[in-house]
Amino acid sequence: MSTPVSELCCSPVLAGPLPPEAAADLAAALKVVADPARLRLLGLIRSQPEGEACTCDLTEPLGLSQPTVSHHLKVLYEAGFLNRERRGRQTYYRIAPNSLSVLCQALDPSAI
Amino acid sequence: MSTPVSELCCSPVLAGPLPPEAAADLAAALKVVADPARLRLLGLIRSQPEGEACTCDLTEPLGLSQPTVSHHLKVLYEAGFLNRERRGRQTYYRIAPNSLSVLCQALDPSAI
Repeated sequence: MSTPVSELCCSPVLAGPLPPEAAADLAAALKVVADPARLRLLGLIRSQPEGEACTCDLTEPLGLSQPTVSHHLKVLYEAGFLNRERRGRQTYYRIAPNSLSVLCQALDPSAI
Repeated sequence: MSTPVSELCCSPVLAGPLPPEAAADLAAALKVVADPARLRLLGLIRSQPEGEACTCDLTEPLGLSQPTVSHHLKVLYEAGFLNRERRGRQTYYRIAPNSLSVLCQALDPSAI
């Protein structure tokens, strides 16, 4: 997807029919998290000490291969749900602030 | 999907890695709304007089064919995002209470 999730228009879905482009952007962001492994990855990263994790911290708890975990991390990073930082030979990931909250605001029925 | 959205376990995603089954249920519910036409349909239904609409109210504003709109309504209904009521020859749809709010609660980063 081209628009990072933090820059999405966050009009509430129920306030009226979203303009087509906003609906496409929001749907693309929702598709990224509409995956069981990615949902579990987000929770696992957030619950690590300091709220950050490298790929090696994540494969065993999820029971997934390193290439699979790396793929999901890349998709989440490119959509704006994760930040990352290279230190030595490892890349550390953490939850990007204002990423999941944008989705939550858009879906919140009490926001209208 | 088998579990209606209103009956999903709504543990916050970021509280820790979701159990596999809860992650699969939540991902399935998110996939249902991760579609631009369905997101627009939800807003359009909610903004109709009385908060309800039949298929005939929805095709023109969305620029979609009647079979396409009917398909999306069926998917949203079966996942628990819409309630429906047959009156005469028409079926009327409205937003199911506690459907989008379950997703919002699960994604809310401030809930942990």
